[in-house]
Amino acid sequence: MSGDTIPGYAYGDESLPTPPIEMAEFEQLKQSVMFTDEDEEYLQMAGDVLEPQIDDILDVWYGFVSDHDFLLYYFTSADTGEPIEEYLDRVRERFEQWIRDTCDAPYDEEWLAYQFEIGRRHHRSGKNEADDVAAVPNIDLRYVIAFIYPITATIRDFLRNGDHSQEDVDNMYHAWFKSVVLQVSLWSYPYVTDDDW
Amino acid sequence: MSGDTIPGYAYGDESLPTPPIEMAEFEQLKQSVMFTDEDEEYLQMAGDVLEPQIDDILDVWYGFVSDHDFLLYYFTSADTGEPIEEYLDRVRERFEQWIRDTCDAPYDEEWLAYQFEIGRRHHRSGKNEADDVAAVPNIDLRYVIAFIYPITATIRDFLRNGDHSQEDVDNMYHAWFKSVVLQVSLWSYPYVTDDDW
Repeated sequence: MSGDTIPGYAYGDESLPTPPIEMAEFEQLKQSVMFTDEDEEYLQMAGDVLEPQIDDILDVWYGFVSDHDFLLYYFTSADTGEPIEEYLDRVRERFEQWIRDTCDAPYDEEWLAYQFEIGRRHHRSGKNEADDVAAVPNIDLRYVIAFIYPITATIRDFLRNGDHSQEDVDNMYHAWFKSVVLQVSLWSYPYVTDDDW
Repeated sequence: MSGDTIPGYAYGDESLPTPPIEMAEFEQLKQSVMFTDEDEEYLQMAGDVLEPQIDDILDVWYGFVSDHDFLLYYFTSADTGEPIEEYLDRVRERFEQWIRDTCDAPYDEEWLAYQFEIGRRHHRSGKNEADDVAAVPNIDLRYVIAFIYPITATIRDFLRNGDHSQEDVDNMYHAWFKSVVLQVSLWSYPYVTDDDW
C-alpha cells in the first residue's frame, strides 16, 4: 500500500512543523547510537527482507500488545475503557508503513520532521488527533522507551527469513536496533521541556 | 571493590526516597521489555564473564564519550567548559559498580529505589550533587535514551570472551539489552511530569 492512501499518514506533509533541532544536531544524535552510512544500506537490505512479512510482523506486535492489558490500555476509550477497533486498525496501517520508512533511508529533514510528529502523537499534545478518537490521552513515556526492546528483538526472526548470511542478518538487526533507539530518542521530545531534552 | 567504599554510591541507602511506582507496576514494565526470571539467571552468568573485564569495558565506554565532544560535554565545568577529571573518575567507579549491580539480580525494591536516584543524577534535579561538582546542570534526555545502543552493543564482544556457547552469549546479551532499556525507562522519570511518565 502506498503511503498516500493511509489515513492520518503525514510523512512529507508540508504542514508539519520544522524540526526543533538542526541537522547538525541530528547528526550528533546519530553518532551517539553509532549510526553510519553502512547502517542505511543494511536497513535497505532489511526492507527487502521484511516487506513480504509486514503483516506477520504486525500480528506479532499487536499480539504482544493485546496480551498485556496495561499496553492495550493505550488503545482504549477514555470513557468506556474498551479497545477502539477502528483506532487499532488505523494505527496498524501506519505502523506497517513505519517499517518501510524505517528501512528506506536516508534520514533527511523530511524524515526527521515526521519523527517529531510521531512523538507528538504518542504524547497528550497530539494523541488521538490524527484518528479523531476519544482514546486515553497519553502514552506514558516509560512504555514508549520500554517498547524499544520488543520492537527490536522480535524483528530478528523475520530478518533471518531472507537469503542472507548470518553476518548480514546481524548487521541488519543492529542497524534496526540503532534506528529504533534513535527514533524513540526523538519521540521523547514533547514529553520534556526544551532545556531538559 | 566493594560498593561501600565507592564515593557517592547509594545503593541500599535508607535515605533514598521510596520508588514512585509500586512493585506491581514495575512488574508491568519488566513485562514490556520481556524480562523474565531466566533473564536474571543469564545476567548472573554475564556478571561472572564481565567481572574480570570491567576495567576494559569502562575504557571502551569512556573512549566513546571522549571521542565525542558533545558527549564529553556532560562532564565539563559549567564555568570553564573543561572536562572535570575528578568527576570523570568518580563517575567511572560507580559505572563499574553499575555493571555488577545490573548483573546481580534480583531487581527488588532496593534496586528500584536506586534506579530512580540514578535517574535524578542525570537530570538537573540531582546532577552533580553526589560529587559536589559545578559541571553542566543536566544530561539531555535524548542522549540518555540514545546511550541504550552503545552501552548494549559494545558489551557483546566482552560476553563472547567467556567460555559459553553462542546461544548462552546471545541469551546473556539479550538479558543485558532488556535490563538497559528497563533502566533507562526508569531513569527518564525526573524529566517528565508524573502524568506523562
